[in-house]
Amino acid sequence: QRKHRIAVIPGDGIGKETTPEGLRVLDAAARRFGFDLELTHYDWSCETYAATGKMMPDDGMDRLKDSDSIFLGAVGWPGVPDHVSLWGLLIPIRRGFDQYVNLRPCKLLPGSKSPLANRGPEDIDFYVVRENTEGEYSSVGGRMFPGTDREFVSQQSILTRIGCDRVMKYAFELAMTRKRRKVTSATKSNGITFTMPYWDERFAEMAKNYPEVTTDQFHIDILCAHFVQHPDWFDVVVGTNLFGDILSDLGPAVAGSIGIAASANINPEKTAPSMFEPVHGSAPDIAGKWIANPIGQIWSGAMMLEHLGEKEAADCIVQTIEKLLAEGGPRTRDMGGQAGTVDVGKAIAEAV
Amino acid sequence: QRKHRIAVIPGDGIGKETTPEGLRVLDAAARRFGFDLELTHYDWSCETYAATGKMMPDDGMDRLKDSDSIFLGAVGWPGVPDHVSLWGLLIPIRRGFDQYVNLRPCKLLPGSKSPLANRGPEDIDFYVVRENTEGEYSSVGGRMFPGTDREFVSQQSILTRIGCDRVMKYAFELAMTRKRRKVTSATKSNGITFTMPYWDERFAEMAKNYPEVTTDQFHIDILCAHFVQHPDWFDVVVGTNLFGDILSDLGPAVAGSIGIAASANINPEKTAPSMFEPVHGSAPDIAGKWIANPIGQIWSGAMMLEHLGEKEAADCIVQTIEKLLAEGGPRTRDMGGQAGTVDVGKAIAEAV
Ligand SMILES: CC(C)[C@H](C(=O)O)[C@@H](O)C(=O)O
Ligand SMILES: CC(C)[C@H](C(=O)O)[C@@H](O)C(=O)O
Repeated sequence: QRKHRIAVIPGDGIGKETTPEGLRVLDAAARRFGFDLELTHYDWSCETYAATGKMMPDDGMDRLKDSDSIFLGAVGWPGVPDHVSLWGLLIPIRRGFDQYVNLRPCKLLPGSKSPLANRGPEDIDFYVVRENTEGEYSSVGGRMFPGTDREFVSQQSILTRIGCDRVMKYAFELAMTRKRRKVTSATKSNGITFTMPYWDERFAEMAKNYPEVTTDQFHIDILCAHFVQHPDWFDVVVGTNLFGDILSDLGPAVAGSIGIAASANINPEKTAPSMFEPVHGSAPDIAGKWIANPIGQIWSGAMMLEHLGEKEAADCIVQTIEKLLAEGGPRTRDMGGQAGTVDVGKAIAEAV
Repeated sequence: QRKHRIAVIPGDGIGKETTPEGLRVLDAAARRFGFDLELTHYDWSCETYAATGKMMPDDGMDRLKDSDSIFLGAVGWPGVPDHVSLWGLLIPIRRGFDQYVNLRPCKLLPGSKSPLANRGPEDIDFYVVRENTEGEYSSVGGRMFPGTDREFVSQQSILTRIGCDRVMKYAFELAMTRKRRKVTSATKSNGITFTMPYWDERFAEMAKNYPEVTTDQFHIDILCAHFVQHPDWFDVVVGTNLFGDILSDLGPAVAGSIGIAASANINPEKTAPSMFEPVHGSAPDIAGKWIANPIGQIWSGAMMLEHLGEKEAADCIVQTIEKLLAEGGPRTRDMGGQAGTVDVGKAIAEAV
């Protein structure tokens, strides 16, 4: 029987509540489709930080590196600065394991509600492919003349040929598996005149390898406007770390699914484990109440199974979610229902 | 009688069609409210570039500098690269005249249609205050190892204390003139860890001077989502050059007014002229057909009058636009009507 080794990091806040439901559904899928999941739990979080001064132990990356995938809840808690929590756990894993693709589906699910007027499931169904290791999130920068009128800060945005090409290739390959075969590039080469024209150059170059794929590109300002006005234009959208970050929150927002959106941090060559996490954060305001929506976590679990080669099981989970939503199954408050986190998890697990 | 000297630059494409309508309305307001406009026309554009090799003459800035304001149409044309057209005309004026505030109202006008479901004029009425001279649009950067696998580009984002403080001060002062007195800061300090934490620091510092103003801040990714989900949360939103650029396209998009949005590039100390331009571009696809919507240009004219101290005239123009839209006056195709550019301009001018 096939076996997959999963490192589980529930993290903070509602991550501790949604992760068990994700696992419940994964377990149901494993039994139905005949594979084993070998889970190793890690309690790394802002709580561990409070106790030990570290978000993860010094050998944390070493411990994770032999797993087949990482299943993450959410990271961050009030009182612990982002540069400690995020840059002590989330970002080092993304970079250290070269998870250079951050893949986020934007889909209007049947039965869920878009804030847009007159938009149905057929109008919103695309992927954001975000570069996940370089760009605007760089580690080169600093401050001069502190405390004076001359004070300034500077941070470099860095795009490498390797970094651009590999994420663009992923986007084109993804488009090739889809009906519309279209890739849209997010740029801002009219304003950001050193890095972004290079991005455009690499995009044009990569497009030559995929004559079957239609391409277009928009500056990020008008592209955000188009997400609202014409979400039906998009199939696969590729962007830098920052632009991808923005678009992959805006996309689920227009689809009305920000509470249930999933994401995959992928190392396509599988030279290191990939990581799967919901788009939502630790949500301190509702943590501890067990009312958080577990669908983002469960959907991320489906993306994980697909990455592990369990495509049938992955499709089954996604279809089950869509079916339960369409048929008015139990839903949490954010979707207008009364159910708790566990109710929704159980309903999906049983249906699987 | 009061006199204002206006430099008029219609620029490219539909700018040549909307600018005359802007002037028609300004002229009507001047007659009604008793002031003179002394106009100087400049034909600087991509056409001039084709003929002379320059977007503006070498002494262009000198010629503009004694005007009280600049009234701009649109800049850019296919075949002329952005770094020539925009960086040869628009950006040098913004920077050279220290127009450090780019102010853009986001307003759901009565009778115009938002793509959002169930949103009325009372829900969307805020300003984006964009830093207009530094940040991500910097002139420091370059490329190394061209043509090799090591190739990379780098561009610095620069925030100065002076640059942050002055635009934030403007935002707070603007909020003080409004009913809700709220300022929202657009940040991304969890991902962009040198420049954006500094932005947060300066924002917290400036807020101390305005105890009557409520503040909050969001990372740009979730802020874009909130623009779609909760546009009613916002009153004045302040952001860096790039974030302000994104938000000031997204804001009009959710308000359904991207074709009619106005903007002001302001030098608040009036040490140099300010510049007023619609948010839309030169629109090559419809240029020459005289069907472009002139409202963005006319509204920009109203912002110019306000800046010149003609508040009564400015209010009159804005109210006239709102009234004509609400009462089903002539409208261009983008707003579902049949009228031409000139029809709309004339209707507004007459009503003023
Ligand atoms: C044309 C471009 C350089 C410009 C900008 O990004 O500033 C435009 O998008 C704007 O918002 O005025
Ligand atoms: C928490 C933050 C650093 C992170 C990011 O910007 O990458 C988050 O917004 C995301 O999209 O996963």
